[in-house]
Amino acid sequence: MVEPAVKMGPEELTGFLDKIFPQMHALGRVFFIDEILPNKAVVRLKANDSHLRPGGTVSGPSLMTLVDYAAYVVLLGNMGLQALAVTTNININFLRKANAGDMIATCRILKGGKRLVVMDCEIVREGSDELIAHATATYSMPPAK
Amino acid sequence: MVEPAVKMGPEELTGFLDKIFPQMHALGRVFFIDEILPNKAVVRLKANDSHLRPGGTVSGPSLMTLVDYAAYVVLLGNMGLQALAVTTNININFLRKANAGDMIATCRILKGGKRLVVMDCEIVREGSDELIAHATATYSMPPAK
Amino acid sequence: MVEPAVKMGPEELTGFLDKIFPQMHALGRVFFIDEILPNKAVVRLKANDSHLRPGGTVSGPSLMTLVDYAAYVVLLGNMGLQALAVTTNININFLRKANAGDMIATCRILKGGKRLVVMDCEIVREGSDELIAHATATYSMPPAK
Amino acid sequence: MVEPAVKMGPEELTGFLDKIFPQMHALGRVFFIDEILPNKAVVRLKANDSHLRPGGTVSGPSLMTLVDYAAYVVLLGNMGLQALAVTTNININFLRKANAGDMIATCRILKGGKRLVVMDCEIVREGSDELIAHATATYSMPPAK
Repeated sequence: MVEPAVKMGPEELTGFLDKIFPQMHALGRVFFIDEILPNKAVVRLKANDSHLRPGGTVSGPSLMTLVDYAAYVVLLGNMGLQALAVTTNININFLRKANAGDMIATCRILKGGKRLVVMDCEIVREGSDELIAHATATYSMPPAK
Repeated sequence: MVEPAVKMGPEELTGFLDKIFPQMHALGRVFFIDEILPNKAVVRLKANDSHLRPGGTVSGPSLMTLVDYAAYVVLLGNMGLQALAVTTNININFLRKANAGDMIATCRILKGGKRLVVMDCEIVREGSDELIAHATATYSMPPAK
Repeated sequence: MVEPAVKMGPEELTGFLDKIFPQMHALGRVFFIDEILPNKAVVRLKANDSHLRPGGTVSGPSLMTLVDYAAYVVLLGNMGLQALAVTTNININFLRKANAGDMIATCRILKGGKRLVVMDCEIVREGSDELIAHATATYSMPPAK
Repeated sequence: MVEPAVKMGPEELTGFLDKIFPQMHALGRVFFIDEILPNKAVVRLKANDSHLRPGGTVSGPSLMTLVDYAAYVVLLGNMGLQALAVTTNININFLRKANAGDMIATCRILKGGKRLVVMDCEIVREGSDELIAHATATYSMPPAK
């Protein structure tokens, strides 16, 4: 198991991610890193009209993008800047209708190996503890030099 | 098994989807329905700079959005306009680096039940037959009235 | 959300499951229900030689069988005897080598709907808190009469 | 992509697997390799009473065991005897009630990488082309020496 030591804070990591994923903010900044903890991180999607489906529901792709971003945050925040880590699998269960509002993803590392890192993420709407979605994500780490 | 009869063509379905998901085209139209066939559909993402990650790779969330859209196309195209069908699960394996270009998703219905519809989708880059990603998607159908 | 009220205890449920799945004990009894709690259950696989792969590792199919059994236990223990509930999806990540010993699965209900029940399960080896495997399981409930 | 060259035939591979998984036949031989083809294999489960659930349905764990075995067959048959390859993920959708009979799994390699091999498997009942189950399986390959 990788040492669960936080390698950097939200501000430093936001700066790094802004540089490599500038297009995430093409329609305005909506993703925010709330916390980076040992083997864990909390990331927020401030869902606006562009994320809504008919009936005022936050869309599935918006939640999947949140999972991908949040999983990358917990990985980089705990294992250092590994821009070359690549997602190999995401499995997401959509559990409840996501009404408009802030979506909070809490991701944790289930296994931090040298080659594969597996995480799970729970998404709730701010102010509720009912799960909107649950996902697992696997990243492949670049070979050590 | 639901009758595998095509219920509408690409133009009619594009018109319907434009109305319910107008925000999909917020940055310009990038999703196109190539074909609707019995139990099957082919959908294209014309990936542009806004979909690329460092190194010129089409991003994971862009491919997940393509899966979600394409699975909905095969479902509606074959089962009629069910705006109330909701995604319950997406599982996606990212298999190869997706270089910039048109991403082609071919989705088919594995099981078209009254309550659940399960599909799989293969994504290739136009002009290649190597799989970029493989996904399964499950939709829950609204109760019959 | 289904009321998280425990409907029956380990002994009563073991008796029911023994009747409908007698073949699970064809090689001796290896599955045991430790606890049934609100929206949760703990189930044990006493892995013996018949579950081991070369190198003394508990096999993947043994762990998948444990997930299927444990998910069914949490579902029946909390929602009553629904012999007609059927598994629609299992997704399992194998995280660490499972050395011989008791495998403990803790499953909880993420969403207890009228039509779909989604659970996740964590498997550890007794005496350790490192995850051996993590799974999600979805069951489809029979239509209410 | 790994060269899609068949490395050995069903008999040779059956002999190898019998040695490393002797306990698979504890209740009699039920798994049979029908064919090994480039990037593909066909494996049969002769389901007997020990695999049935109430109502005469082949159990989920029996089908998951078939997937795990068949995925290993396509991997070894095409990439050579890699006893150290380990399953990292299996995702299975159960699509239709599996009536008693021979279950035929056809697995193919979607991506044969140096570190990860991803496969999908379709299971039908002999004599039918309706899918009973669809699965994806990922194996991690041992580091090259």
